[in-house]
Amino acid sequence: MTEFAGVTIKKAANIYFDGKVTSRVVTFPDGTVKTLGIMLPGDYEFGTEKPEVMEILAGELTVQLPGSDEWVAVKGGETFEVPGSSKFKLQVASVTDYCCSYID
Amino acid sequence: MTEFAGVTIKKAANIYFDGKVTSRVVTFPDGTVKTLGIMLPGDYEFGTEKPEVMEILAGELTVQLPGSDEWVAVKGGETFEVPGSSKFKLQVASVTDYCCSYID
Repeated sequence: MTEFAGVTIKKAANIYFDGKVTSRVVTFPDGTVKTLGIMLPGDYEFGTEKPEVMEILAGELTVQLPGSDEWVAVKGGETFEVPGSSKFKLQVASVTDYCCSYID
Repeated sequence: MTEFAGVTIKKAANIYFDGKVTSRVVTFPDGTVKTLGIMLPGDYEFGTEKPEVMEILAGELTVQLPGSDEWVAVKGGETFEVPGSSKFKLQVASVTDYCCSYID
């Protein structure tokens, strides 16, 4: 799916880490929510309440998932999942375009 | 208007200037197109084919419009217009969230 049709997009961006991470909220007719975002190179820690599926559209990064010491490489075309009520760390190596789906 | 409903959003971002400027394309039911984007601090020159209305949602910048030597300050809540088939320069002072409307 290269585009989302019939959706609602919030105009204002979410801006984190001095703008090095930004995203916009897209709401689907069934009420589900995704964010489309950009991460510039850097090291970040995020927290999430809901479980997430992170689809990397472009870019290169490594992720340390909660409860793991391991850093896993992820690149454009790949996906990783984050459990709810958790924190995870990212090391972004090149400009990363992503789509994050929140799972209810 | 704080959100756009019933629109189509292209999933992949447009990425310029090593990710310091990024945007996503939103298409409306009547075929009109807007981009929602982020600019990090820096100096940029853009070209546009269609006339544009740039609405600054947040941030601070100055703009030099085509044919002018003057730099005009623009900030969140303000708008400027760019004629078609032209180039314009921006000096972005703080992370800037914008909505660009292309005029047919």
